[in-house]
Parts: sequence; structure tokens; C-alpha cells
Amino acid sequence: MKRLRRNRERAVLFSRTRVRVRFSETDAMGVVWHGNYAKFFEDGRENFGREYGISYLQVLGAGYTVPVVELTCSYRKSLTFGEEIIVETGYVPSEAAKIQLVYALYRASDNELMASGTTVQVFLDKDGQLQLTAPDFYREWKRKWNII
Amino acid sequence: MKRLRRNRERAVLFSRTRVRVRFSETDAMGVVWHGNYAKFFEDGRENFGREYGISYLQVLGAGYTVPVVELTCSYRKSLTFGEEIIVETGYVPSEAAKIQLVYALYRASDNELMASGTTVQVFLDKDGQLQLTAPDFYREWKRKWNII
Amino acid sequence: MKRLRRNRERAVLFSRTRVRVRFSETDAMGVVWHGNYAKFFEDGRENFGREYGISYLQVLGAGYTVPVVELTCSYRKSLTFGEEIIVETGYVPSEAAKIQLVYALYRASDNELMASGTTVQVFLDKDGQLQLTAPDFYREWKRKWNII
Amino acid sequence: MKRLRRNRERAVLFSRTRVRVRFSETDAMGVVWHGNYAKFFEDGRENFGREYGISYLQVLGAGYTVPVVELTCSYRKSLTFGEEIIVETGYVPSEAAKIQLVYALYRASDNELMASGTTVQVFLDKDGQLQLTAPDFYREWKRKWNII
Repeated sequence: MKRLRRNRERAVLFSRTRVRVRFSETDAMGVVWHGNYAKFFEDGRENFGREYGISYLQVLGAGYTVPVVELTCSYRKSLTFGEEIIVETGYVPSEAAKIQLVYALYRASDNELMASGTTVQVFLDKDGQLQLTAPDFYREWKRKWNII
Repeated sequence: MKRLRRNRERAVLFSRTRVRVRFSETDAMGVVWHGNYAKFFEDGRENFGREYGISYLQVLGAGYTVPVVELTCSYRKSLTFGEEIIVETGYVPSEAAKIQLVYALYRASDNELMASGTTVQVFLDKDGQLQLTAPDFYREWKRKWNII
Repeated sequence: MKRLRRNRERAVLFSRTRVRVRFSETDAMGVVWHGNYAKFFEDGRENFGREYGISYLQVLGAGYTVPVVELTCSYRKSLTFGEEIIVETGYVPSEAAKIQLVYALYRASDNELMASGTTVQVFLDKDGQLQLTAPDFYREWKRKWNII
Repeated sequence: MKRLRRNRERAVLFSRTRVRVRFSETDAMGVVWHGNYAKFFEDGRENFGREYGISYLQVLGAGYTVPVVELTCSYRKSLTFGEEIIVETGYVPSEAAKIQLVYALYRASDNELMASGTTVQVFLDKDGQLQLTAPDFYREWKRKWNII
């Protein structure tokens, strides 16, 4: 996952949020089921969105949806019930009409890196049409945060 | 759960479908997480709907949605990964503008009853208005299946 | 659901916790999928456990597991993405070797009651044997909180 | 996702299984929530395992667990409730002590490619120790299927 590392280095805006592992998220191996990490990424993404003014509902208000078209996750250590995690979300600048984010999951008790990942989102307008150029609201958002 | 027993005795239409337990549905106790049984009930409900012509998409086509307003589940034995279950769904006749269903979950290997439950659904029209009398399509559906 | 009301009136210990609805918890009707309320109940149950010293991990430490054997949920209003809810969990005293809890879900913004429910849990020892009398640690716990 | 394409070309064993989208798997955008694709991959993986004799329970019987340490998913078209999908799972040969699989999700009605992805699994022994060389049972399994 070279790309994951490369993207982490290029990220420019960050937010951090705390999430408690739910019992329902564990599996019969006694650890969090790997597919549930997408929920933690989403927690991080929404927290990032609230902090920087680009949350799902704000994007929707601007007339767009931003479906995830790519997701990667690299698992380093198992998460168990009772643990709390810090989800760090970073924004990766890009010329493309996309939102690229990187995620790092740390165990809150000792700051150990447990997992990391990436998502890529595209813009669809109200008719579900893929936007090949960045919507105006997104360009403005980038300007506001000095992202070139 | 006297009501559950009473409802089972009154049920008149039945359907059966087979479901395989997913690994992601287990929890750290090594068994299926209790909240996931609602998925098995929904599998049963949809199978019943397809068999008797009252599936979610058919109801939607008639102009209504049928949200669940009550759910009960009684757990007898734990389900584990690798097992297959039979979901038996029965229709409980009622004068009310409601769909009342009962569910029984059997382990496929030995027909052991693992859990049972009930749901009650109401009818909302396209504006989200609760229907106090049964919609026409539902009355017709009942007549078709000789439900008084 | 008379029993739900009756149990609410009899509850003696309460805890409250705040939960944010996840996007992944919504369904194609645009509201939280009904089966996901079991997760909110579990959030409430764990919060109650941490507050009163009877969390899942503490029970496990005493040598027992406490599987849910009965769950009911009554849905009043739909929850949507972006909302925060307050889960209120109450303990219903009982002679039996059981943990009976009642739950009320309020929308945080206006304190509207959105849903309510109950769970019953039993005690299994390390060999998975059902305990017909209350384990010692549970009797002590009840004494500590003046529950007769 | 060049690696995804490269891995698909190198895959040597394939299995196909049919999965019906659950209503609970949709989200408020009206389509399957992106994180749920990991469940479809797991359905494919288990089906592959049953077909080629390397299912989760068989691996467990040999004394190992095989946690997922890497997952990627590339989303092409949205899945909606009521659709059935074909999950095609392929095995990617490798010298390493790993199980590398590729997945392709096709809509059953028209064989359209909806999504594709990869997982990498490692071997842990009963003490949770990472195996740096392939366990004997895995070498035998590879020989049996003529994988060099």
C-alpha cells in the first residue's frame, strides 16, 4: 500500500474524533470484524466534514451527493470490545473532481496505530450525473482552506 | 411472551426460506449477535412477500411504505457461524390497518427452534401519512388469500 | 405493549447517554433501519453498566456472560441521519436470575420520544450453563444499589 | 487500482455464488452502503472456501485463523434493494504466507460489473502468532490444486 503512505504524506487538513468500539462490531474471533472499519472511517469523515464545513448534509445542501468509489484499508492490530479509538482524517489535495481522504485509527489508551486507509469520493448532481469538473461550491471550499 | 404464542396459533399463511449465518453476524461471544435476528426476520418477511405478492417493492408500487412499528424477539438457543437456518414467516389476520407477522427460526440441520418473534407494520402513503384504514390494495390482497 | 409501560414504571436506576446516528445505519426509506435500534439499546446498556458497575466486561470478570433472551422495541417516530439521540436505560427489579432493562430513545434536539423497548438477559457460567438462581456478584450488586 | 487489475489477471481458481441484496444493507442514498460490500466479499470468500476446501472452519480445524490484513474495493455502479448479485472470487498465487483473493461483483440480471476488490489474509496460530512461512496444511492445499 505505497499509495496509502504517499497520500498520508500529502494530506493537508486533519481532524480527530473519538469512537468507542461496540460489542455488535466484534466477531467470533473476539475482535472487531474487519468490514466494520468502514464505519470508523465514516465517523472520521463526518467529523472532518463538520469541522471543515463539508459534511454529507452540507454537500447535499449544495445539490450534490458524494458516493465512495474507492476504499482501501490496511489492518495492523486487532481492535477489541471496550477499547476507544481515535480516528484521524486527513484531506489529500488533488486537481480532480474528487474528495480524497486518508484515515489513521489509533487506540486511545496508548496511541498505537491500529489501522489506516483511504477513500475516494466523486460528485453526482441531483440527476445522478457524474461531475467531471469540480462543482463551484467545492472550488470555493478549497479556496477557503488555501488548498491549491 | 404470551402474545407471541397467541399470534403463532392464529397465523394463516406461511412461507419458509433458508438463510446462511454470516461470519460478520457473529459477536465476541462466538454466536450470532442478538440484534442481527432482525435481518433474518426481514429475510423471512421478504420471502413471504415474494411468495404471496406483498413484497416491499410491490407495496411501494401500490403507493405505500410499511415501516415496522413493533418488533419482539425471543431467543432460545444460540446460532453459530457455519449454520444454516430456516426462517418460517406466518401472517396473523387482523381487522386493523396493519401487517402482523410471526417468525420462527429453525436450525436447518436438526429443525431445532432457535428463536421466534413478531413484527407489526403500518401503512404510510407517499406523504408519510399514517393510514387509519386498510388501503384498497391490501383489502384486495386479503380477499385474494381468503383472509377475513 | 402494556408490559413495556409497566416495566418503565417499575424501573429504579437510570442512566442517559448520547448517540449520534450513523449514515450506515439509515436505509433506503431515508431513516434509521429498525433493526439498528438494538445497537442504541446496547449503547444504553453499556453506559448503564459503566455507570453502575455492571458492564459486560465486569460481568465477564465475575465469570458470567449475560446473553439477551428477549428483546422488544416499539417505534414511534423515525430517526434520520444527522440527528443525535439520548438513550435512557432503566433497571427493572425482579426476583428472577435475570437482568431486565427498559430503554427510551429521545431526539436530543427537542426531547421527543422516538422509540422505547426492553431486554431480558440471563446468566450463563463459563461452561454455558444457565443459572437458575442469581449469582453472588449480582446479589451483592443489588444490595449495593438498595434493590430488593 | 492497477494492482487490482494485475491481481485479477493472475488469479487461477474461481468460484461464483449468488447473493440477494438485503433492505438493511441500503442507506439513505437508496443504494447499498459502501461498507457492506465487505459482506459480499466474505460471502464470496466462504463460497470459494467451501468449493476448494479452505473455508474458515476448515482453516480453524487445521489450527489457524486467517484475519484480513488488507482490503480494497472499487465501486463502479450502485446496487439497489431487490437486486441479486453474482460474487466471483479468484485465488491469486503468491510465494508469501498469505491468502490473496480478488472479487468481482456482477448484477445477476444483466451481468454488469458493479464492483471489484481484493483481500489479503495472513495466518495466525492458536497463540495468535503471525506465521512467516506457509503452514503445512496450506502448502498441501496448494499442491492439491497445482498452485506453484
